[in-house]
Amino acid sequence: MKLLEDRIRKDGVVKAGNVLKVDSFLNHQMDIKLFNEMGREFKRLFADRPINKILTIEASGIGIACIAAQHFGVPVVFAKKAQSINIDGEVYSTKIQSFTHNKVYDVIVSKKYINTTDHILIIDDFLANGCALEGLIDLVKSAGATIEGIGICIEKGFQQGGDIIRKKGVRLESLAIVESMNDETGEIVFREQ
Amino acid sequence: MKLLEDRIRKDGVVKAGNVLKVDSFLNHQMDIKLFNEMGREFKRLFADRPINKILTIEASGIGIACIAAQHFGVPVVFAKKAQSINIDGEVYSTKIQSFTHNKVYDVIVSKKYINTTDHILIIDDFLANGCALEGLIDLVKSAGATIEGIGICIEKGFQQGGDIIRKKGVRLESLAIVESMNDETGEIVFREQ
Repeated sequence: MKLLEDRIRKDGVVKAGNVLKVDSFLNHQMDIKLFNEMGREFKRLFADRPINKILTIEASGIGIACIAAQHFGVPVVFAKKAQSINIDGEVYSTKIQSFTHNKVYDVIVSKKYINTTDHILIIDDFLANGCALEGLIDLVKSAGATIEGIGICIEKGFQQGGDIIRKKGVRLESLAIVESMNDETGEIVFREQ
Repeated sequence: MKLLEDRIRKDGVVKAGNVLKVDSFLNHQMDIKLFNEMGREFKRLFADRPINKILTIEASGIGIACIAAQHFGVPVVFAKKAQSINIDGEVYSTKIQSFTHNKVYDVIVSKKYINTTDHILIIDDFLANGCALEGLIDLVKSAGATIEGIGICIEKGFQQGGDIIRKKGVRLESLAIVESMNDETGEIVFREQ
């Protein structure tokens, strides 16, 4: 998606350690007009799928999931990190390793909000090593629901997550795939799609 | 807002300990059509204010903040709980006591995304004891920005948060204010507005 690639080139900052900072428009400050265009593009990419619900994970996936949901006319469910006293009843749970925070989270979703009749689009802002996505896929499978696809804003194509997910046979669409980046020159190369 | 009050009466569940569960439409599964109507109402209520940015806090405030932002045509910034290695540079920080999780969070926002020229609308899904809002107000004041108002989806009017915030002279608009609720009968009484 050229609009997103251009924005990453303009406002993204490449840091040592394969860190791409996009917190000026994607995951701290959020450019809602851009989100709306990304939501429209997810709808175009998955127009042929009978999606009735979007699943994401807190926190930075929630914004793009909600804006995208307007284009699909469906509700959003966000998976929660760690147990809360306000989630009662039974939950599906999985464990997710966070590279960013260097710890393992328990991630849960109420059994009330995903079930065997659901056709789920998973949306998240970033895909790197794929741990968060594998956890979300695990939750959907636990519920016996159908995964219609996965929509990602930015995929780090030089990390393994995209390959792992695609090998599972899940349809994965990333709006921008970073093939390589250089923290000395700031150069970012995107995969041709 | 009658639409929201009706929805709370229909789908909200009153639990012992003053817990109002609205996770079927507000803070776990999210009804985006309802969010859109709430966003429209926030715009109506704050139409006279020169708002250029919406501030919320992760996680459950992000959805309504993003949808509301479409009605204002402004970006959203969400305050983050605890330090992340992906937030660099300087941050404003404050501490927030969470009643729900029974712990104290460090909450931060990058100095890059709130400054003295900003006119901020704070949006959150719930107001009970007011701790989260007091933290967000503290962050905005640290940045020297102007608080134009606070928009809340559901206020528990029988807890102290609303009074504390209104006594600060901040304009606070809650779309539904629960005056009382009974976990034996399930009855919910709303404040006349």
